Amino acid sequence: MTSKIAVALMAGAAVLAASQIASANELLEEAKDYFQPIPSVVPAVKDNAVTSDKIELGKMLFFEPRLSSSALISCNTCHNLGMGGDDNLETSIGHGWQKGPRNAPTVLNAVFNIAQFWDGRAEDLKAQAKGPVQAGVEMASTPERVETTLKSMPAYVEAFTKAFPGEEKPVTFDNMAKAIEAFEATLITPYSRFDQFLEGNTKVMTAMEQEGLQLFMDKGCSACHAGVNIGGEGYYPFGVVEKPGADILPSGDKGRFAVTKTADEEYVFRAGPLRNIELTAPYFHSGKVWDLEQAVAIMATSQLGEEMSDEEIKKITAFLKTLTGEQPKVDYPILPVETQETPKPEAMVAK
Amino acid sequence: MTSKIAVALMAGAAVLAASQIASANELLEEAKDYFQPIPSVVPAVKDNAVTSDKIELGKMLFFEPRLSSSALISCNTCHNLGMGGDDNLETSIGHGWQKGPRNAPTVLNAVFNIAQFWDGRAEDLKAQAKGPVQAGVEMASTPERVETTLKSMPAYVEAFTKAFPGEEKPVTFDNMAKAIEAFEATLITPYSRFDQFLEGNTKVMTAMEQEGLQLFMDKGCSACHAGVNIGGEGYYPFGVVEKPGADILPSGDKGRFAVTKTADEEYVFRAGPLRNIELTAPYFHSGKVWDLEQAVAIMATSQLGEEMSDEEIKKITAFLKTLTGEQPKVDYPILPVETQETPKPEAMVAK
Repeated sequence: MTSKIAVALMAGAAVLAASQIASANELLEEAKDYFQPIPSVVPAVKDNAVTSDKIELGKMLFFEPRLSSSALISCNTCHNLGMGGDDNLETSIGHGWQKGPRNAPTVLNAVFNIAQFWDGRAEDLKAQAKGPVQAGVEMASTPERVETTLKSMPAYVEAFTKAFPGEEKPVTFDNMAKAIEAFEATLITPYSRFDQFLEGNTKVMTAMEQEGLQLFMDKGCSACHAGVNIGGEGYYPFGVVEKPGADILPSGDKGRFAVTKTADEEYVFRAGPLRNIELTAPYFHSGKVWDLEQAVAIMATSQLGEEMSDEEIKKITAFLKTLTGEQPKVDYPILPVETQETPKPEAMVAK
Repeated sequence: MTSKIAVALMAGAAVLAASQIASANELLEEAKDYFQPIPSVVPAVKDNAVTSDKIELGKMLFFEPRLSSSALISCNTCHNLGMGGDDNLETSIGHGWQKGPRNAPTVLNAVFNIAQFWDGRAEDLKAQAKGPVQAGVEMASTPERVETTLKSMPAYVEAFTKAFPGEEKPVTFDNMAKAIEAFEATLITPYSRFDQFLEGNTKVMTAMEQEGLQLFMDKGCSACHAGVNIGGEGYYPFGVVEKPGADILPSGDKGRFAVTKTADEEYVFRAGPLRNIELTAPYFHSGKVWDLEQAVAIMATSQLGEEMSDEEIKKITAFLKTLTGEQPKVDYPILPVETQETPKPEAMVAK
């Protein structure tokens, strides 16, 4: 290679690099209109001061199988913190090996969602935490049983007393839920490559990933999947343009309609939050799709009425994989030992 | 109180204290003939170098639900490290909510047992680890499925390659078992009050606990429950003197007889290791007894032919509670994400 050609090539590369940087900066400015990075501190939650004592208690409760009547199932069973905060099953397995009705959503970053559950029927995480504990197909317990269980172990009484100072009777089902919410508020996954991009480091995303981000905004995905959680902010019909098949959208599950009883909310669900999406297959409330590219293609046709090219799908998928953040570091908690007053595990039959 | 009386009382107290110390030292010397403290370093295991890479991989595998065909049950499900290394159930709940035949033994300090399982049918922990993975009532998987699963995830291939350097095909079912054994060898609970006593600090055990230890040796408990694990060293008939009722010793489970087919091994079991015994109710292979005092009373009649007084039982129980050591500190592992090649969870039916 002559030196002239080399110089010309280098100049060209410099120009290209400069134009890439310019376009990356434009992309960044556009992205900032839609998305926010995960904050680096634990977010506050409504009506529940997140203290370290409460977090520590909440961690114990999150891993506590004796919140279930079988003494086998804990929050972590279906919201496994080592597996993206969910169970990687189509729908969860619960008490008596019963199959739950919907795919378990991730607990990671759930604090940023507008409301909890696929249909948003729980206002916040403390309301959510009370659901599975009582659901017959999940943990199959009762508030009374939970309170008796927790009161039976002096170490829990002490931990509740510390976590809820000044309360005369701190060991309650409500406070169980508040402590779990406090712990869950710590389960955020900052520092994904997309977060770093949003903070101004445009080099951290490849050209293909940036093109995917551009497509994600241009095609309209970001109309529903925006904010801190790239979703989880609002409710939309699954099949705005074209309903997917019954294999993916079973006719028996009408989503938010069951909550609001409003006819135009049939098949309406909370837009899935897309953070750590590569860790949380299978996808959709039905959990029927294991392949992220296929999930993107289904969203394109059902929500946007668009047949995306394979290349477009690959680019968007590449962008989605930049949403994987630092997973929570958790010391596995040592749980209090039961006493003779602790309710025994229930007969091992389905309810 | 006159100063004379006070002096006399103080002198008496000093004499009493001196005689207590003398008797504590005698007790210590006697105890050393039977028991050894838990070593402060991870013990070596046969044919399996315990390296940090292997421990790290083994920890992931110990918490890996995808070793089960349902993708729900991990080693930790029944050997919960937050609950004394067992599940606090009579007998475990496994695949399809099936009830296992025997109470799950603790994994803590299991490395010190002569062999594994209640009947000693697994020579060591690496042999043991292969059992539950394949048992239809437990994890219901196969070596082939496990290998396919692990090979499908690049992060596992990398971890196996590091843990088993120089091996051409490191991702095998056997190496899974070896890695789990290496991790389990770290699950020791040193520094119990009894260990401190054995190391010479006689003040750490109360007078009642020391009396319990004396009774434990005098009555003959230590004939079977000795060594590092205060048990787990040999095989003995349950009911040497008097068979307990069928509620506690079900006639269908003949223990080691099923392994050796030797008539005189009917109802023979490995003596339960008693470390952390206060954390691992319910007791016996049948898991039918929740109260430690009751368990001591049953052992007294069945193994020693002795009706112990309530006071004796309370003292021995107090001693047994000094066997609770420091529980393992474990960072909850982040598990590799599945790929399209990872076998999907099996249809949710019992096998």
